[in-house]
Formats: sequence, structure tokens, C-alpha cells
Amino acid sequence: MRLSHNFTKTSKDIASDETSKNAQLLIRAGMVYKVMAGVYAYLPLGLKVLEKIKQIVREEMDAIGGQELIMTSLQKRETWEITDRWSDENVDVWFKSKLKNETEVGFGWSHEEAIIEMMKNFVASYKDLPANVYQFQTKMRNELRAKSGIMRGREFVMKDMYSCSIDEEQHEKFYQETIAAYLRVFDRTGLGDKTYVTFASGGAFTEFSHEFQTICEAGEDVVYVDKSKKIAINEEVLTDEVLQKLDIKRESLEKVKTAETGNIFNFGTVKSEQTNFKFTNKEGKEEFVHLGSYGIGITRLMGVIAEIYSDELGLKWTESVAPFQFHIVSAACRDSELNDKILKIAQEIYNGEYKIIKKNDQIKIIKPGNLIEISKFMLEDFEAVGGEFLWDDRENISIGAKLKDADLIGCPYQIIITEKSLEKGGIEVKNRQTGEILVVQI
Amino acid sequence: MRLSHNFTKTSKDIASDETSKNAQLLIRAGMVYKVMAGVYAYLPLGLKVLEKIKQIVREEMDAIGGQELIMTSLQKRETWEITDRWSDENVDVWFKSKLKNETEVGFGWSHEEAIIEMMKNFVASYKDLPANVYQFQTKMRNELRAKSGIMRGREFVMKDMYSCSIDEEQHEKFYQETIAAYLRVFDRTGLGDKTYVTFASGGAFTEFSHEFQTICEAGEDVVYVDKSKKIAINEEVLTDEVLQKLDIKRESLEKVKTAETGNIFNFGTVKSEQTNFKFTNKEGKEEFVHLGSYGIGITRLMGVIAEIYSDELGLKWTESVAPFQFHIVSAACRDSELNDKILKIAQEIYNGEYKIIKKNDQIKIIKPGNLIEISKFMLEDFEAVGGEFLWDDRENISIGAKLKDADLIGCPYQIIITEKSLEKGGIEVKNRQTGEILVVQI
Repeated sequence: MRLSHNFTKTSKDIASDETSKNAQLLIRAGMVYKVMAGVYAYLPLGLKVLEKIKQIVREEMDAIGGQELIMTSLQKRETWEITDRWSDENVDVWFKSKLKNETEVGFGWSHEEAIIEMMKNFVASYKDLPANVYQFQTKMRNELRAKSGIMRGREFVMKDMYSCSIDEEQHEKFYQETIAAYLRVFDRTGLGDKTYVTFASGGAFTEFSHEFQTICEAGEDVVYVDKSKKIAINEEVLTDEVLQKLDIKRESLEKVKTAETGNIFNFGTVKSEQTNFKFTNKEGKEEFVHLGSYGIGITRLMGVIAEIYSDELGLKWTESVAPFQFHIVSAACRDSELNDKILKIAQEIYNGEYKIIKKNDQIKIIKPGNLIEISKFMLEDFEAVGGEFLWDDRENISIGAKLKDADLIGCPYQIIITEKSLEKGGIEVKNRQTGEILVVQI
Repeated sequence: MRLSHNFTKTSKDIASDETSKNAQLLIRAGMVYKVMAGVYAYLPLGLKVLEKIKQIVREEMDAIGGQELIMTSLQKRETWEITDRWSDENVDVWFKSKLKNETEVGFGWSHEEAIIEMMKNFVASYKDLPANVYQFQTKMRNELRAKSGIMRGREFVMKDMYSCSIDEEQHEKFYQETIAAYLRVFDRTGLGDKTYVTFASGGAFTEFSHEFQTICEAGEDVVYVDKSKKIAINEEVLTDEVLQKLDIKRESLEKVKTAETGNIFNFGTVKSEQTNFKFTNKEGKEEFVHLGSYGIGITRLMGVIAEIYSDELGLKWTESVAPFQFHIVSAACRDSELNDKILKIAQEIYNGEYKIIKKNDQIKIIKPGNLIEISKFMLEDFEAVGGEFLWDDRENISIGAKLKDADLIGCPYQIIITEKSLEKGGIEVKNRQTGEILVVQI
């Protein structure tokens, strides 16, 4: 993308009503737009990050046999009355409205009951199980307060997955596969080190549910982590008995603020009994389906990444979710010959006419024709870096302002082409995470 | 995808409350699920079609410089009061609800006002224009009736695009580019022949707006088409004066039922005057922005394709939007040696171990190792057919039932491997559009 073609602008100002760091940075970078408290639109650069996170989650859900679908926001009263979750006394985050004929409808804050109702049409026999479905759905929740930016919205994107199994064994297998898949999602998005499988209170069916808690100052939760064992415990289940069961010593626990980035839940047959969701087993007898539910807050994940991977200059996206891998900054120059040279190099890099390879902190930018040189580096374990380019080709903007914007938007690598860099013998490549600047010959 | 892994099932039954052909077929094929009248979920096979249509539209909008973003469903009262479109008297399709503090909110049935409010933050100078943005948004409309299946929903997906231009000339350029892009969308999705640029009444600013009307028995509109000139006229503007202006003779017009699959609208400066949306021109003076709005009903398009490309056996997707290009049907066989052979061929085709090439109605399935043969056909203008495979690998389902399901689901090519086909010397390839069956040696 050429920045001159992008309609958003960066901004120095922080909206007075926006107290969360993630939303402040994302709004300043022109990535999101605040419609009202807890309600954010995603502008082109922000949408790219959101879609990259979704794609990582999609790949991991598909890999464990999840089938993607998309349910509806509009919900029927009857669907939720069966489990007594329609009334505002029992669920206090419903947005509700009415059809023309006065029939009440709700807007999906969750889809458990809706998915069960739908699945009942397709599950009859043990041969139809297991069935594991997921969606990326825009959830609506009428939250009393919404002050955490995109980390807790009134309208937000969630990946919710539901498993239907014949018994506890089949359920447990998928449950464990999902834990592994979730850990891969957090690893791939850059939150692996900070994210803990956390023991929380279960429901009617199980002793524990599992949360995925990411250490984050802006989080709304508090958990106790054993960093050496990579396990965390929610305060509500922090008893001597539980500590013993998990073989954790109280003195090795550290109290930390966290954001709940994922959770998984074993319903056993509680919900299927409520909704009469049955299948016929091998012996021809009817049994209740074992159900599980598995969520990852997609927009929350993006918010947490923005909180953790940022500094006073702006965002520092991880490579896997960055809107672009490379942010080319070309500076105008009074010497018209030099100016043409700068533009030519920028244009060629933008067009993908160079191969970019790296090894640890080293980076090389090479014309693909230069096969001997490329093979030499490849033999030295350099790896090709793929990815798209954002080119700040705006005219009449100073190099200083462009570099500030590049830091604010936070693509992993800045490719800086200026009169100065050419004097130094090439172009400068700045690693946004480390701040390190290399002069790279081309 | 293996059908044995897909949780949906086909069904012979037509739900008694579903009167539209598109929804009946899509529900029977397990592609969509009806939540309530006008509210449909998209199951894995249906979601694939939806995403393919979106991708075609996305490519065409990107090609003319559209920038993708995603606005929010939740809408503020103030945003719409400015243009007097908040009240239920003026807009009768609002779904509305309330925040905890009693603040009224609406659910987006359109996003014109919301987009303008957002764009005002980014457009200041003529240098910021043109700016053309689009989204794929789930719209909510509280329709009195919803009887056309996914062709008119209470919750549906729309691609809506908005253009901001400095003057009528800049606007007109993009407007014409959008007409061309829309025609490419209809061509690519298979509706090109049946879709007409239609003259309809304009607004305060222009004499005409343009609709894209697709001839379809299930459509809710009636227009008058001149098939030789590929132009249509909406009844509301069908006057002698207009006919003269468009150089069309009344007797060459044919009255047809149509579905409005797209529309484009020139607001001129009417809406920017209402909302005080200004920019500074080259002379440093303030001017109102010229606005345009451009919609394509994505789920409606899918519904219209289902209506047009179907027969008494089921759906007949066009290649560009089909959930899968190839539907492999392998039949079990009592002779275990032959059975193994059938499974092996099916598995190899499913794995992509064959190259599939075609020329007009001819099709060849060749092992890629067979380079001489492939080059021979390529020299004869055969083309490689890409695309994914759906494999009906279900056990204990008769070949008859499998073939019926393949016809119902409607992938363009059925690759049928049975004892009988092997006796005939290979496998049968059925073209779902033409019904033609070829025996292809492999």
C-alpha cells in the first residue's frame, strides 16, 4: 500500500475520552476509529492486523478439525429461554429489540444455545460425532462500562468454537487438542511467553475450566502464576487443596494483572440435558451429547498485542500480525538526480524487485539477479523474509514526520532511503522491536 | 473437504415455512440454516460460496482504488439525526435498543451517515481526495416481511462503498469506474448476461440513479429492458422524455421481473451540506465534498445465483463461486481388490496428484508425470483447471444417494469412480451445468 493512497492520517492528539493505551495508539495510528465507548471501526491498516490474527486462529482451528460457519447476530427468545438465559436478570448484557409484529429479538452476546439448536438438526447418531464447529462472530454485549479500548467492547469479534462428542473420552481428546492449538495461536501472535493456562472454577460438570490469561498491565483480571511451571491459578480456586492437586507451592506464586485472551469450557452433558440434545449410540440407545465451548477474543487479542508491543513512540507489531512487514520511507531530496535515485530504489523495493533475507539481526537486500550472492547467504543460513510493503511516498512531508509515523504505525522493519543513507553506502533498515538500525548495501 | 468430516447433511424435506426456492435449495443442501424469517446462518459449504463472492467483489473494488475497512453495527442516534434519518417515521427498518444508561442505539441498516462522520476526521484538503472506502458489513433491517430467502433478509451481508470527491468531474470518473467494476463482478459471478444497468429515479442532485437489476423470476422488482441495447428502465422513470433521452423505443422494451443486485447513487453535495462535510480547495476556500454510494447485496447475489443456476435436482454453481470445483464420488464395491482400486484413485485425485485440463466440453485427468501427454494437450489449447475437491468418502451410503447429493450441492464437475466407470475404461466426469457425462481415461 502507498501511504499517499491511504485515506487515514496519524494524529498526535489523544482523545480526551479515551483512557486505554491500546485504543489511544490505534486511533493515533489511524488503525481504528471510535464510534462510541466500546464500539470501534477498523480502518484499512487496522483491518489488516485483525484479518491476520483471524487467519492464524483459522489455520489452527482447521488443523484440529474445526469447521467454520457463521451464525447470526439476531437471536430468538425461545432459543435462550430453554436454558433460562433470555431474561435480563440472568444475563445482563443483552441488547434486545422487536420485530414489527412485536416479537422480541436479541443480538447475540454468545452463541452456545443457537449452535446447539442448529446442531440438533444434523446430529442423530454416534456416526455424526464428533462435530466441532467455529465462527468469527461480531458479538454485542451491553456492558455497563467500556473503558479498556478494544480489549473489552460492546461490539467485538470473537472466535467461538463448540465441540459435540459422544462421551467424556472423545470430548477430552478434543479439549486437549484445543489447548495445544490455543497455545500455538498465542505463540504465533507473539503472546506465547506471557500467556498462561489458568485454572478457574468449573461449572456443574467439571471442577475446573481453563482460561488463557496473558500478563498485561491493562488487563482486568488478577491471577497467580507459577512462572517456572507455566501454570496460573484464578483467585476463585486458590485453595490449599487445589494447590496440592496441581503440585504448586503457594510461595512460588506471583500475583499479576492479566487479560483473559481465551477460555475453554467442558459442559459435560449439562447443556445437552437442558436442551434435550441427544444422539443414538452404537447399541441403539439415546444418550446426551457431551459439549464443550472454546473462545478467543480476536479484537481483545489485537488490543493486548497493542498494549504489550508498544512504547512511547507507538506500536511495535510482531511480524505475524503486522499490517505490513516493511515500511519504506523515502525522503525527498533537493538534488534532483539523487531524488530520482531515491525514488527509483524505493519503487523497486516496493515492486518486490529485491530479495530480502535475514539471519538473526542481520538483514540483506539483494537484486534477485545476483544469484551467487544470494546462494552464499542462504548457505550461511539466511532466510528469505516475505511480506508486503507499505511505502510512505507522500510528498511535502518531512523525513522526520515520516519516521515518526513509521514508529507510530509500527511495522517490524523500516526501510529508510535518504540522501544520508546513500552517503553511508546504502539504505537504513530499522528494526522497530529492537530499535537497531543497520546500513544495508544494495 | 471430505464429506465424512462435514457435519451438515442434505435433506429431502422442504421446511413448510420456507417458500423461496433459493432458501429451500440451500437449506436442503446443508449450506444455510434458517434461524428465523429473513435470518440465515451460513454453514461450511454455504460460507465457502459467500466468501468466494466476497473475494470477487473485493478484487474488483481494490482494482478501482477502494480501501477496505469495517464499520460497526452499533450506531449513535446523533449520527443519524443530522440528516433526519433516526426517527422511525422516516426510516422504518431500524432495530433499536438502549445502553444501560438509557442512551438509545441503533443497529446499522445502512452506513452512509456513519461513514461521513468518520471521514470528516481524515478529509481536510483537496489533497486528501478522492477517498473511496468500502466494507462487507452485516446489515440489520427490520423488514415487515421476509419471504425471499437470502435474497431479502433482516440480517444480510452487503458490500457498501462510498466515494468522496472534490467535484463532479472527479466523482463522475469514479462513478463510471464503479459501473465497469460492477459489470465485471456480475460477469465473473455468472450473472453478466442477465444483469442490466437500469435507470431509476435520482435524488435531489441527479436526474437518475443507477440500479443493477438481474432478471430473475423470484425478484421483487419489475423493470423494462431493451435487450439489444443492454439497458433497463425502472417503471418510475419510464416517460417519453426519458425514452427519448436514452434513445430507446417503447416497443423494444420488455417487462421483466428482476432482483436489484446492486445500486449506485450520486449524492452530489446534498449529504455533505446536511452534514457539513467540507474540504479546502487549491485556492484555500472551503467547498462541500461530492459524495457517492455504491452497494452490492452479497447474500442477495448468492440467492440470485441459487435461483438462476439450479434445476429440479438442486444447485448448479458457476465455477467462480462454487464451494468446490470438483465433487468426487467414489462408490464402494463388493470386490475388495476393485474397491481398493476405486479408493486409491479417489484418494489420489483428492490429494491433487492428477492434473485436470479441459477444452470446451472435453476434460482430461492426467498424472503430472506424464509430461509428454500434458504438453500435447496444452498445445491443443487445453487449459489447466484449478480448484478444490469435495470428496464424498462416506461409507454405507449408496452410489445413488451420493449422486443425488452431488446434484443437490451442485459443484460444477462430478468425478464419479465406480465399478461401472472402471469397466467403461476410466472414470465418469459429469458437468453439472450441462448434465453431460464423459468417460475419461486416467
